[in-house]
Amino acid sequence: MTHTTPRPGAPSSPDSVRPLRIDSPTGAGVPEWDVEADVVVVGYGIAGACAAIEAARTGAQVVILERAGGWGGAAALAGGFIYMGGGTALQRALGFDDDVENMKAFLTAAMGPGADRAKLDAYCEGSVAHYDWLVDAGVRFKPSFFGEPGWEPPADDGLMYTGGENAAPFTSVAAAAPRGHVPQMSAKKAGEQSAGLMLMTPLSERIAELGVRSEYDVTTRRLVVSADDDGDRVVGVIGTRFGKELTVRARRGVVLAAGSFTYNDAMMRAHVPLLAGRPGSAVEQHDGRAIRMGQAVGADLMHMDAAEVAIHCDPQMMVRGILVNGRGQRFVTEDTYPGRIGQEMALHQGNEAYLVLDERAYEEAGSTVSATPFLRFRPKWVGETVAEVESEAGLPEGSLQATVELYNRHAARGEDPMFGKNAQWLRPLEGNIAVIDLRGRTGGFALGGLRTDPDSRVLHVDGDPVPGLFAAGRCTSGLAAWGYASGASLGDGSFFGRRAGISAAAAS
Amino acid sequence: MTHTTPRPGAPSSPDSVRPLRIDSPTGAGVPEWDVEADVVVVGYGIAGACAAIEAARTGAQVVILERAGGWGGAAALAGGFIYMGGGTALQRALGFDDDVENMKAFLTAAMGPGADRAKLDAYCEGSVAHYDWLVDAGVRFKPSFFGEPGWEPPADDGLMYTGGENAAPFTSVAAAAPRGHVPQMSAKKAGEQSAGLMLMTPLSERIAELGVRSEYDVTTRRLVVSADDDGDRVVGVIGTRFGKELTVRARRGVVLAAGSFTYNDAMMRAHVPLLAGRPGSAVEQHDGRAIRMGQAVGADLMHMDAAEVAIHCDPQMMVRGILVNGRGQRFVTEDTYPGRIGQEMALHQGNEAYLVLDERAYEEAGSTVSATPFLRFRPKWVGETVAEVESEAGLPEGSLQATVELYNRHAARGEDPMFGKNAQWLRPLEGNIAVIDLRGRTGGFALGGLRTDPDSRVLHVDGDPVPGLFAAGRCTSGLAAWGYASGASLGDGSFFGRRAGISAAAAS
Repeated sequence: MTHTTPRPGAPSSPDSVRPLRIDSPTGAGVPEWDVEADVVVVGYGIAGACAAIEAARTGAQVVILERAGGWGGAAALAGGFIYMGGGTALQRALGFDDDVENMKAFLTAAMGPGADRAKLDAYCEGSVAHYDWLVDAGVRFKPSFFGEPGWEPPADDGLMYTGGENAAPFTSVAAAAPRGHVPQMSAKKAGEQSAGLMLMTPLSERIAELGVRSEYDVTTRRLVVSADDDGDRVVGVIGTRFGKELTVRARRGVVLAAGSFTYNDAMMRAHVPLLAGRPGSAVEQHDGRAIRMGQAVGADLMHMDAAEVAIHCDPQMMVRGILVNGRGQRFVTEDTYPGRIGQEMALHQGNEAYLVLDERAYEEAGSTVSATPFLRFRPKWVGETVAEVESEAGLPEGSLQATVELYNRHAARGEDPMFGKNAQWLRPLEGNIAVIDLRGRTGGFALGGLRTDPDSRVLHVDGDPVPGLFAAGRCTSGLAAWGYASGASLGDGSFFGRRAGISAAAAS
Repeated sequence: MTHTTPRPGAPSSPDSVRPLRIDSPTGAGVPEWDVEADVVVVGYGIAGACAAIEAARTGAQVVILERAGGWGGAAALAGGFIYMGGGTALQRALGFDDDVENMKAFLTAAMGPGADRAKLDAYCEGSVAHYDWLVDAGVRFKPSFFGEPGWEPPADDGLMYTGGENAAPFTSVAAAAPRGHVPQMSAKKAGEQSAGLMLMTPLSERIAELGVRSEYDVTTRRLVVSADDDGDRVVGVIGTRFGKELTVRARRGVVLAAGSFTYNDAMMRAHVPLLAGRPGSAVEQHDGRAIRMGQAVGADLMHMDAAEVAIHCDPQMMVRGILVNGRGQRFVTEDTYPGRIGQEMALHQGNEAYLVLDERAYEEAGSTVSATPFLRFRPKWVGETVAEVESEAGLPEGSLQATVELYNRHAARGEDPMFGKNAQWLRPLEGNIAVIDLRGRTGGFALGGLRTDPDSRVLHVDGDPVPGLFAAGRCTSGLAAWGYASGASLGDGSFFGRRAGISAAAAS
């Protein structure tokens, strides 16, 4: 149902993200609104859910428009980590010291260079209260700590190191504290049924209780703006459901919370070419449309090249060996956050890496507990000497030998002056040597997006907020400018999602 | 002089880049135009100059608005290289074989990953004709080749390798051909008076002859758009000159050619944080305003993280030694294009590098001819052994020793299996060793910007051209998605500048 004759300047293509410009939301020639609410939330993942709850709690009438057939988004499929610290109740219960300044110091180093100071400060300062808010909303965290290398806890432990906090170089900038808070889930199965579901389930219950209207199968296509003294004001959205247009008025504000551009190949090639064609930890709805809808009203972008990158290998294996690039050189400390290894490999080493283990390391790793045993790949090359596997793997003659010789010499003294690997994991590699081929074994999701302020207002390229437009989650640039930590995405999505809901409900 | 009462939705801040929306360029309530032309070119650097010439040659009435007090832009201060090939008259006169496919193969590898295939193809296919066009316009190239390592020829030679075409890994993807064409200049003084002046001078003469009107000291602040069936149509610009507003109507099109965002610190922190605060080869007018003016009408961006990076060291020195990172590891072949060394160092090695030379290499380099002898820094550390300088420079114990041992062993055989350095430059480092500290010695300019098509039409985030808006030069994303070659910026600026002028003059 098309309610209006397109004005001159209106888009002709139904796939256009150009806004519909109207004179006023109630004037002549404007859409007949199919749905009206105070706050319209686009996307029912973690950011949208938190926005909806906070907006509804102020008494505002809220509607969520979700493209899929049900709630959840990428969050419900995720490992479920929420990055929080500064001394949360869970950290304290488990005996870990942390404070706001310590958390800021870590995140400044780990999310940078170029991290948004104001958002990072707000996030750290509000983190303890954010944990309490999630618990109050019904998210359960079991007070137990998983302390082994891994992508996630194999069982239902609630806390873990998820950003390399206990590895070089971060141990020299902040006291190590685990900040990966993971909702309790008993029947976990990595990659299929993960703890993200236990984050989204209670939030969806709160949303239902609050009387929020949820509209599924709605693809939001463009914004509706009216002229305002401060510039164009966002007053609604136009979506489609099964090919029919749906016009939705937002009396106070629209919250964009529709995810990343990871599945938009053209955008990936334009902004993150090194990761184009290798999506990970995203859903197909992450086509960047919300970002483009924002751009079409002059919203600014930030850090569009940033990306989370997972390396597909069990950290229990990596930590016990050495990782080398295509020239047989080490390039990262093997006991850091595996996502950091993935970023270094994919973005700085031409997506080429090899894991070198001796027999003892390989066997020890195999006997450990892991949530991701399917990432324990078999060696591609094995030999009795380093020279033998170096040659078989096609590494430059002498390169891996020099690397292992230097590593072993330092490791025998419990030192790693090259990368600062913890002494716990240092031991000379001896006897039979195995090399696991990790070339191309990375994937990830885009971290860049709309530029927002700490109140989740979308900023125009002029620097001022776009009136009526708010955003959070992966359609925005959040905490990470380059680096990453597991839980930072659900973390900034939930934290700034809440702020988006509060700001939108307060807009007039 | 403000001619109009701001409409609702118009910007209140004089610094705003928001467009002025009008109903039609000649209707009621629109500006009294101070200046009218068919084509309005914003910026009188290389892209603007070429656009103006081509537009004027079609018979269109053209005006150039330039922010500085005279023509030239960054181009007039640049080394002057224009990257051209495929068998230009100059290449052929000097006996170098090249063809279009060979040039495409090189640029695809050297400008990527993520290079714009359509623009790259058009550029290579039109390169021979582009050379002839420049010569016809009065740009002179001396038929002599400078074959030594360097940033530019010390004298007035016209051709040079400027992108690592004769170094690994590019020698394995395309036959080496020099493509850096530099206008002849006798009184060259690097960093002060360079050949870019001899590129801009004849072009400015052609522009004057063609009757193009040039308005200096005009800062173009925002676009004027009117509603059109295809969306907002750009019909003019509003600028200021000494605080007074200047309204300029463009009957056919506006060409944005106002340079990069290198001097906009906020944009650099948002897009190229690793290079923020270290501008190079740009002028202060490069504040990204043209990019933001485009964004404000929904124009898309590409490769905003891309950057040219110069390393401040004489290539005659680098090629004779080895470059290592903060862990004493080599990271690039030392005989490649020095700008590639700069990119690898600043963007992939934490901006930390050291040049290691022996006494013979240091002295040999000192006796060579160079256009940049002021970049021959003295060693910070010297010693009788590698171990000694390794310790003094604070590199991990054994790291540089292992690197030199491996390099020397291969070099003695005339091989470099690590990086493929040409045998000509391979010789074991022996005797007294010197280390030059290159930490932080990089600077550069941003390469990202507005997304354009091969006809230099600015593309909306919808993918369609923004009617009436064209762009070229460093306010656009040109050839380089990541890598670079000297001359690529004046190259795509001149080539796509011409196309912008032709497209704008043909617009209706």
